[in-house]
Amino acid sequence: MTLPAHVRIVEVGPRDGLQNEKTHIATADKISLVDRLSATGLRSIEATSFVSPKWVPQLADAAEVYAGIAKRPGVAYPVLVPNEQGLDRALAVGVREVAVFTAASEAFNRKNINASIDESLARFAPVMSRARAEGVKVRGYVSTVLGCPYQGEVPVADVVRVAAALHDMGCYEISLGDTIGVGTPGKARAMLRAVAGQVPMPALAVHFHDTYGQALSNILACLEEGVSVVDSAVSGAGGCPYARGASGNVASEDVVYMLHGLGIDTGIDLGALADTGRWLAGLLGRETGSKVGKALSAT
Amino acid sequence: MTLPAHVRIVEVGPRDGLQNEKTHIATADKISLVDRLSATGLRSIEATSFVSPKWVPQLADAAEVYAGIAKRPGVAYPVLVPNEQGLDRALAVGVREVAVFTAASEAFNRKNINASIDESLARFAPVMSRARAEGVKVRGYVSTVLGCPYQGEVPVADVVRVAAALHDMGCYEISLGDTIGVGTPGKARAMLRAVAGQVPMPALAVHFHDTYGQALSNILACLEEGVSVVDSAVSGAGGCPYARGASGNVASEDVVYMLHGLGIDTGIDLGALADTGRWLAGLLGRETGSKVGKALSAT
Repeated sequence: MTLPAHVRIVEVGPRDGLQNEKTHIATADKISLVDRLSATGLRSIEATSFVSPKWVPQLADAAEVYAGIAKRPGVAYPVLVPNEQGLDRALAVGVREVAVFTAASEAFNRKNINASIDESLARFAPVMSRARAEGVKVRGYVSTVLGCPYQGEVPVADVVRVAAALHDMGCYEISLGDTIGVGTPGKARAMLRAVAGQVPMPALAVHFHDTYGQALSNILACLEEGVSVVDSAVSGAGGCPYARGASGNVASEDVVYMLHGLGIDTGIDLGALADTGRWLAGLLGRETGSKVGKALSAT
Repeated sequence: MTLPAHVRIVEVGPRDGLQNEKTHIATADKISLVDRLSATGLRSIEATSFVSPKWVPQLADAAEVYAGIAKRPGVAYPVLVPNEQGLDRALAVGVREVAVFTAASEAFNRKNINASIDESLARFAPVMSRARAEGVKVRGYVSTVLGCPYQGEVPVADVVRVAAALHDMGCYEISLGDTIGVGTPGKARAMLRAVAGQVPMPALAVHFHDTYGQALSNILACLEEGVSVVDSAVSGAGGCPYARGASGNVASEDVVYMLHGLGIDTGIDLGALADTGRWLAGLLGRETGSKVGKALSAT
């Protein structure tokens, strides 16, 4: 069992974290959040989302946030775009990397975007070609890879098919998301292995939510399978829209603590990351969702 | 990588959990807690501790609790005993299994019981022979196996030596405890592997605290190494005396959820366990410390 020597963390707190938070965060604080994260050594920070403000009011200031953050050389600041309109808004402020998203569950797609999986993939075609023409990198998210709030089980074959389609369309990296956090390590491992049969492992990332406390063990199983890109959110920001009061994204601090303990390099200053997590928790008016964040502040 | 087909959970909430809780719990509620746990399918429930009430006032009612619980056939109800006086008190109420404890860290032993490791082991000799004469089983705890609040690093060789000594003295099972929860999966795996070189794996258990959120991934790594006995506390009761506000024992619900997801049998009804965890959290006046407990109540 060989673990990767280096793991790249894709920090999704400013986007996946904040989009599920009810507490209003000021634009200046969102900019500070990204700038603080940039100073920790992170190399990928998902900065915001250009979805319709009607759907995610918290991120209605996407253009101002993106324009305001200090772009460090060597750090990528992808933003989420749902369609060409979102891409247009992102390109207008100089975005160099975008992320598109669909689900491996038919029921989830139908419920969320009123489209089948194939229709949702078809909608990306113009986004992909515009992005290619502009020299903008595209990351792809596949959600509900280990379970769906509407249909329950999600066949691994569907995950493989959707991930491969996004890769074939030109996504340089596919992030496999356990949206409702129901997965356990054996299932996570089997799913990743199946996808890696169609998409090269270096083009895969894993994205776990900690709803059932399983995120770190799922990540460990996936590291053992060879994945070397992990999504996480500082302070465990987010929460789960399908289980009120439950945990959201796995906390970046807890992931980085585990990785460093395993001798895996991340380039991240854990102390600075935990400070940022506690600062964000303060803005959100609650305790940090990171156990490492809590423990480091207590000792 | 073969995982065990069955794992025995040793539920330590009524002892290791409650002993670190400040909220006073009535004797009748402690008895209810053990009785509720007995009904979940658990086969080992550490019921209380016969340490001096001076040190653990919360468990001063150990004799009443033990006498009051309904002993189910096939369920073991071990109790902690620090010395012969504790053993006498336990034997007086008909205890059939006891647990003794020491640390792998010299500094921890010196600070906590004012004895070297060897002195602490020597003190067990009369406890072991009395227990043997009475036909009482003895479980051994080794604490600070992955780090010590006083000396920091704990050499693996010290863990191996202490575990082997307890086994040689007649402990049928040795529980390896990461008392301050600092361990990560690679270190946990290496420590377990080293101990298993001296003590047969079926005689080993692992005991993780979730202070840094690493408990489940440490357990996963140890399952992969072959361990099949895991200590945990319903509702994640406990807290950490060395890091105020931090998490305590890993929550039994979260462990059982992972095990069942891995296809590992525990004989435990997860719903009943989570109900008990929320009931206990109510007594403690706070939210359950189990993410599974939270998620199940929210959905």
